[in-house]
Amino acid sequence: MSTNASTNGVTNGAPQKAPQFALSSRMSTGRAMSLDVWSIFNAANLPADCINLGQGYMNFAPPQWVKDAADASLNTVSANHYSHPKGRIRLREAIRDHYSKDFNRTLDVENEILVSSGANEGQYAVWVAFCEPGDEIILFEPYFDQYLPSITFNHGVPVYVPLHPPTNFSDKTTSDAWKIDFDELRRAITPKTKMIVVNTPHNPVGKVFTEQELQKIADLAIEHNLIVMSDEVYDCLLFDQKPHVRIANLPGMWERTITVGSAGKSFACTGWRVGWLIGPQSLVGPTLAAQTRIVFCTNSPLQEAAAAGLEEAEQRGFFKKQVEEYQERRDVLLRYFDEVGLKYSTPEGSYFVLADVSDVQIPEDYPFPDMIKGRGRDFYVGWFLAQELGVSTIPVSEFYCDEHMKIGERFLRFAFCKDLDTLHKAGERLRGITKFYKKK
Amino acid sequence: MSTNASTNGVTNGAPQKAPQFALSSRMSTGRAMSLDVWSIFNAANLPADCINLGQGYMNFAPPQWVKDAADASLNTVSANHYSHPKGRIRLREAIRDHYSKDFNRTLDVENEILVSSGANEGQYAVWVAFCEPGDEIILFEPYFDQYLPSITFNHGVPVYVPLHPPTNFSDKTTSDAWKIDFDELRRAITPKTKMIVVNTPHNPVGKVFTEQELQKIADLAIEHNLIVMSDEVYDCLLFDQKPHVRIANLPGMWERTITVGSAGKSFACTGWRVGWLIGPQSLVGPTLAAQTRIVFCTNSPLQEAAAAGLEEAEQRGFFKKQVEEYQERRDVLLRYFDEVGLKYSTPEGSYFVLADVSDVQIPEDYPFPDMIKGRGRDFYVGWFLAQELGVSTIPVSEFYCDEHMKIGERFLRFAFCKDLDTLHKAGERLRGITKFYKKK
Repeated sequence: MSTNASTNGVTNGAPQKAPQFALSSRMSTGRAMSLDVWSIFNAANLPADCINLGQGYMNFAPPQWVKDAADASLNTVSANHYSHPKGRIRLREAIRDHYSKDFNRTLDVENEILVSSGANEGQYAVWVAFCEPGDEIILFEPYFDQYLPSITFNHGVPVYVPLHPPTNFSDKTTSDAWKIDFDELRRAITPKTKMIVVNTPHNPVGKVFTEQELQKIADLAIEHNLIVMSDEVYDCLLFDQKPHVRIANLPGMWERTITVGSAGKSFACTGWRVGWLIGPQSLVGPTLAAQTRIVFCTNSPLQEAAAAGLEEAEQRGFFKKQVEEYQERRDVLLRYFDEVGLKYSTPEGSYFVLADVSDVQIPEDYPFPDMIKGRGRDFYVGWFLAQELGVSTIPVSEFYCDEHMKIGERFLRFAFCKDLDTLHKAGERLRGITKFYKKK
Repeated sequence: MSTNASTNGVTNGAPQKAPQFALSSRMSTGRAMSLDVWSIFNAANLPADCINLGQGYMNFAPPQWVKDAADASLNTVSANHYSHPKGRIRLREAIRDHYSKDFNRTLDVENEILVSSGANEGQYAVWVAFCEPGDEIILFEPYFDQYLPSITFNHGVPVYVPLHPPTNFSDKTTSDAWKIDFDELRRAITPKTKMIVVNTPHNPVGKVFTEQELQKIADLAIEHNLIVMSDEVYDCLLFDQKPHVRIANLPGMWERTITVGSAGKSFACTGWRVGWLIGPQSLVGPTLAAQTRIVFCTNSPLQEAAAAGLEEAEQRGFFKKQVEEYQERRDVLLRYFDEVGLKYSTPEGSYFVLADVSDVQIPEDYPFPDMIKGRGRDFYVGWFLAQELGVSTIPVSEFYCDEHMKIGERFLRFAFCKDLDTLHKAGERLRGITKFYKKK
């Protein structure tokens, strides 16, 4: 297809010195160029037969009837071509019909719903639209690690407020025991604060924020005229009849809240990259303008499939059945934790559980690769257990700023979005952990 | 799923005053919030039976064998879940095998190929990675309109260098007659210049840059140590045996060039949002770091399908056949232009042709909607012809800065990525244009 104008950038037989190009300064912020936790705890670096309870994707397929809708859309002409940047009308209508009851209002498909290329890109677009250089964005730690560089790429300044874990864990401790210190939150707010990011159910804690907690956040948001971005991608995964409270529904909050949802989490298709934002026109409109330039639009065939998913979920009893399956998965894993005496807070939502690995002792001369060295204690423990037991996890200090890393390095994150067979196998391997406990 | 905490942001029966949130200043640059040409010349605004030769998507489906590969991938588990941010290995290997001959080197799938969520997002990620606030980016006009806000969202400064159209059109005039004034290009370079954006085959002109032209651009890029982003998404659509020269292949250029490709353009699936970047590790690596935070990864099932497309294209003779079909489409449309005396430059690549509509006279009292008012003359002519003839196009002044808009407003862009039947119907309607010509 091309003519042979030269060979490999080599001129006159002599290799040229490679040119140097300055990166944008934003690439030296927010851990943007450092090796991320996902690359370190990647299957390629771990023992070949390691069971992956690290990254949060399912080892099972989306429901057949949702995949059938993808097939059907591929057999049309239009669903193979550009969608409207707002999202395909069928999906926006399905989102409206699914969520309007939840939000106590009939959502406007033209102005209050925006389909995004995964929840991640939707959130990125919000920051493009609203984050003025120097604006401060409050994150609760542990925070989903993508937030940080997404903010700093847009020249925002993250401000960290930790969730405080319980000092002691009993067999009754739930993720609800992780608490915000509201005085600490109030002190974190400055005249430059623009937004608070809420995540409920919470990754990685599994915490489901109560109405009382959300009301306190809402009070501060209203007092200081802040936007709230509420990442609720696990809104279909709440256990033990815990109610899901949407901060957008609290008095005075609809007009300042953008709520984030995900087809990937809802229908076990994390690789489809279909998410959505719900909020007032004043927030959705500018985010649409940003998104239109970032990705133009989201892939069309899988939007149609996600629409079918939402359209048929209720009549099929899909979410009810799915949450029962996830609760069983959670409980299978937790029984193994109980058996080996690992402490944890029972997650009330999401598909993650944090286990306290303070008691695991690593032999002094154990060899670690350079990419682990200098990281939190949890990186060492996670690496060690992956090598010795064949179960991989994610170290939680990655989700804290340097100053607060000590809080996180007690914990490893286990994902239980895996089939029961895999969870049993992992649990059996975890039995080996007891031989590494500190002598008491 | 949620509790009823409030109703519609209305408290105590009285509607609250909606809060105001400042947009980021980037949203007031680069025409980011103004009504874009695609929204104005949208089917919803045009006569119901209008034939759409405006937006550049096909009114036919991707090849069945490529769609079959999408179906097959949906029937796996893994291709429904996250891909590596670099792209799925099968697609990266297919890109390597398809393009290595073109680039006179064996492309490294780990460091020199990056799958993106459409070519558009890949380009956006390049700007996130390399565009320092204040950096100047040179665009040749008419430029693909997405470039501008993608640059200004990342605080870059676009610098415009027009392609100069021929003064007179004969029946021998091709898109090659649109010329860069290289003195003008040289004068546009300052110490703040970071990058030149090349687009060949060119949207909307259809120009295929010659080796001599690209060499002059390359000389300046090397002299001033500039990055070149070469948007070659129409690289499989060159007509009349015109050779496609890749600027990356010119001496000393591989190390400073990032080349952009597109599954959507290659396999008639613009809605799949699968594109790719090819370049040296020094450019691809930081772009990967940026993209990982913008979208995390690209949708998995359609990456598999695009891989199958590239794997089988050669043995099926696909691109050869496809280009013959497009050349026939082009020629069908051009014969109608000849018939009605519309002047144009025959496009040597892409699926667009610009027609000179200077001779169309609009009745003085013709009603126009507010969204047309104050725009270039071509907006009025395009609107008028859509209403009166039932054929929609895109006004070309949208692809120029305000200062150079006069160059563009002579032209309307016609897309011929439509089946022959549609092109004949549009051509028959175009016969009505002669009654609107100025009396001579």
